[in-house]
Amino acid sequence: MNAAPIRILGLDPGLRRTGWGLISVEGSRLSHVAHGVISPPDGLSLAERLLWLFEAIEGVIAAHGPHEAAVEETFVNANPQSTLKLGQARAAAMIAPARAGVPVAEYAARYVKKAVVGTGAADKSQIAFMVARLLPSSGSPTADAADALAVAITHAGARRSAALRSVA
Amino acid sequence: MNAAPIRILGLDPGLRRTGWGLISVEGSRLSHVAHGVISPPDGLSLAERLLWLFEAIEGVIAAHGPHEAAVEETFVNANPQSTLKLGQARAAAMIAPARAGVPVAEYAARYVKKAVVGTGAADKSQIAFMVARLLPSSGSPTADAADALAVAITHAGARRSAALRSVA
Repeated sequence: MNAAPIRILGLDPGLRRTGWGLISVEGSRLSHVAHGVISPPDGLSLAERLLWLFEAIEGVIAAHGPHEAAVEETFVNANPQSTLKLGQARAAAMIAPARAGVPVAEYAARYVKKAVVGTGAADKSQIAFMVARLLPSSGSPTADAADALAVAITHAGARRSAALRSVA
Repeated sequence: MNAAPIRILGLDPGLRRTGWGLISVEGSRLSHVAHGVISPPDGLSLAERLLWLFEAIEGVIAAHGPHEAAVEETFVNANPQSTLKLGQARAAAMIAPARAGVPVAEYAARYVKKAVVGTGAADKSQIAFMVARLLPSSGSPTADAADALAVAITHAGARRSAALRSVA
């Protein structure tokens, strides 16, 4: 296989902070492209805050032209208000790539941890550590951006497994 | 006051069915403009389903040019998965008007029931009955569309109260 590199956008949605991370994948080689955190200003209404997230993600997509996107499946929290907020942020994060024609894959949090750290019970610092190892040029991204990069790395692994299966 | 009529878009979001209803308000007079239910086809991914809702609501906004929008506040369900789904649908329903520059108001379900039926414990059939009385030309909208029209009616009442207060 001599496929052209593809760019994957990972997203870790939240109403207060949405992490994003872009990687490039060429065969089994991953490289860091960019990452960041979107924080809508305080004092916005919910609708304005969702719009802010949506448009910021559209901006990232316009700037970097990802081919595929991946989002963590919202983990259903013990606190229903938190679950609701996460769901709303996640919808904003999913509509933006969908609208740009970028397919959006979803991965359970445990699956992401297992794919990146090797155990579904990994904590945030272990994820950040492994992201920094797998993507040395990423520097030291904050936890939100590291989680987003971890989702992108997970998607790269999942699509590679699928490609190998289809060749076998 | 001799204000021009304003059009209010009410939304009752759901991943399977999103009701919408448009009314026109001139002073204390309400009239029905249009209503409908958006049902994304089966077999779509979550991202595709959210995009479908978003674009359908954009279509309603483009067709009818509402000045303001109103959405029911998501009621936090006993079932966290339902809460999550509702939150995602609601985000799609809020980003579309926000993006079109249409302000989005939010009302608790109990407030809507109290405003339209007179009691916060009203059931769906009582809401549909009162919507049909207040907007005779609406025919017999389905429950989802009736709920959406009820939110629009609630917003019309709330903004009129605010206007009367600011005059007093």
